[in-house]
Amino acid sequence: MGSRGRVTLQTIAREVGLSKYAVSRSLAGKSGVSEETRALIRETAQRLGYTRPAGQAAAGEVAVVFHDLDAVNSELYMQVQNGVQREAHRLGMTLRLRWTHNQGQLEELARACDGLILVGPHDREAVAAASATGVPIVRFGWVDPLEQADQVTGTDHEAGQAVIEYLAGLGHRSIVYVYGTPGFRGRQERYYGAREVAERYSDVTLHVMQFDEQNGFATAYQALKQRGIRPTAFFCAHDGLALTVVSELLGQGYRIPDDVSVVGFGDFSPATQISPALTTVRMEGQECGAVGLRLLLERIENPRLPGMPARRIMIASRIIERRSAGPCKVAVSLDVADA
Amino acid sequence: MGSRGRVTLQTIAREVGLSKYAVSRSLAGKSGVSEETRALIRETAQRLGYTRPAGQAAAGEVAVVFHDLDAVNSELYMQVQNGVQREAHRLGMTLRLRWTHNQGQLEELARACDGLILVGPHDREAVAAASATGVPIVRFGWVDPLEQADQVTGTDHEAGQAVIEYLAGLGHRSIVYVYGTPGFRGRQERYYGAREVAERYSDVTLHVMQFDEQNGFATAYQALKQRGIRPTAFFCAHDGLALTVVSELLGQGYRIPDDVSVVGFGDFSPATQISPALTTVRMEGQECGAVGLRLLLERIENPRLPGMPARRIMIASRIIERRSAGPCKVAVSLDVADA
Repeated sequence: MGSRGRVTLQTIAREVGLSKYAVSRSLAGKSGVSEETRALIRETAQRLGYTRPAGQAAAGEVAVVFHDLDAVNSELYMQVQNGVQREAHRLGMTLRLRWTHNQGQLEELARACDGLILVGPHDREAVAAASATGVPIVRFGWVDPLEQADQVTGTDHEAGQAVIEYLAGLGHRSIVYVYGTPGFRGRQERYYGAREVAERYSDVTLHVMQFDEQNGFATAYQALKQRGIRPTAFFCAHDGLALTVVSELLGQGYRIPDDVSVVGFGDFSPATQISPALTTVRMEGQECGAVGLRLLLERIENPRLPGMPARRIMIASRIIERRSAGPCKVAVSLDVADA
Repeated sequence: MGSRGRVTLQTIAREVGLSKYAVSRSLAGKSGVSEETRALIRETAQRLGYTRPAGQAAAGEVAVVFHDLDAVNSELYMQVQNGVQREAHRLGMTLRLRWTHNQGQLEELARACDGLILVGPHDREAVAAASATGVPIVRFGWVDPLEQADQVTGTDHEAGQAVIEYLAGLGHRSIVYVYGTPGFRGRQERYYGAREVAERYSDVTLHVMQFDEQNGFATAYQALKQRGIRPTAFFCAHDGLALTVVSELLGQGYRIPDDVSVVGFGDFSPATQISPALTTVRMEGQECGAVGLRLLLERIENPRLPGMPARRIMIASRIIERRSAGPCKVAVSLDVADA
């Protein structure tokens, strides 16, 4: 019990209610803490009679690295950044922020820092190079199946399930999943979740419709109708697509939600700018950021030893009901079987 | 900064390196802490000059409730229990353990306790009744899509993906997913994951085979072969099923893994008792338990306010390579198209 009386970095961290990390950096005279925090820690260390053990020094800072070429998700990334920064402030830390997808820069940051949060679709090689430095990394982005990497995400798969349950509950039986540029993993996950639930209803059919700049909505929708499909609801992989779907359908004379329901994903700002306001799924980016930083600090203070399993933390999204989706008013589905 | 100098429950918790929860219970003279912890906390509180604010009292304990009718998962539940108890010990706490599926008992426990961990397939109504008391609950079991409930699980979906990637990497092109009693959600999740990866390979076919006591392995396998399917690998939803598949195939004269590969799930004790030892997926039940308790304490100490999203925490499983799976030695898949 004697050792519990000794004043350590942890004692000071507990006393001031900030992270051990902030205390360590502050007493080492390093950056990464605010001036206010620095003063509080200095005063507390003196009051408690803290003496620094020989050889103990903090290394780098914590960096948050955003993929710089993924414009589609920029609003989500801003939410994550906001969450990380608020939490850092609460814990008395400052952060390095970088926007890059470059492997060399990522590796260099990993060498210079105590830990990294990677936000976005950084490629496998770049992540592997950063990981090889041994620095703890938390990823807000996708990992491989059972990859031993810590990850924070939204609940994409569940969101797909929940939206189809929601639409089926409103009586919709012919539903279209709409996506644009293929290859985004979150959109694929939402589709898989949607499909699983649709399969549980013998009378619900989930169609897939893809459109992009070359092959626009009107063409894709026409092709669907030529296959005898008369959807009463559209689930869009992203709010941006939902804006297109809503405006194109309105332009073709459909009433929303009286004739057709549309559900988006993301709850980004255009969701409440369009009329009717979009029923969509809210991603909790800010909470993702805060929880991600706490996981990173846990791994910095108690490194994940070989054999200790990695963690996935998912922040539960929620359906935000607005005015673009409503009860299905078509008595019988008019779909014919898919060709 | 003056308030930071006041000695609170948190100060003592930080000083002794135990949970605020343990400190609170101990100073209230309640159960839920070990005698050793109690002595340490009493001594520390005196040394720091702690005085208890008027009206502050701890309520109940933390309880871990195991579903008492789910024998199939008992080995996993023991791992979870082990993990929860080790973590509780580390934090200076004791726990109430209960085995029940009864709604009335669950509700009563919820009223008597500060928080519950529910392990197993407790039914919706029972969970809803316990939740309605307002006590924080962490579930090790399934939740509905986007349900605002905190959950700790393994990575079932990813495990299904990873096993098919693993088998496809070994050259297998005709793979059977084997399950027994339908309705277990984890098994369904693993199947969905497996299917997603199989779909990405144009030349991999994933068949499904179900058998149980009435309709045994031999009958089900015969039916598969009559459809022209010649699988070179079996992915079993559970180690218990893998034992049956391995022994039945050996009995029919197949060599494992020379003729057929078999992969299980769970890494329970029979996995190393059977010969050849089973290649399987290890669930990290102990880590699930420890992380689950920490999440519950976080929610007890900082209650999740309305609008704060729930969290899913998944502990990454891993493939344990032993001797029941190997490279595919059949040059060309002999499958005919499914009828």
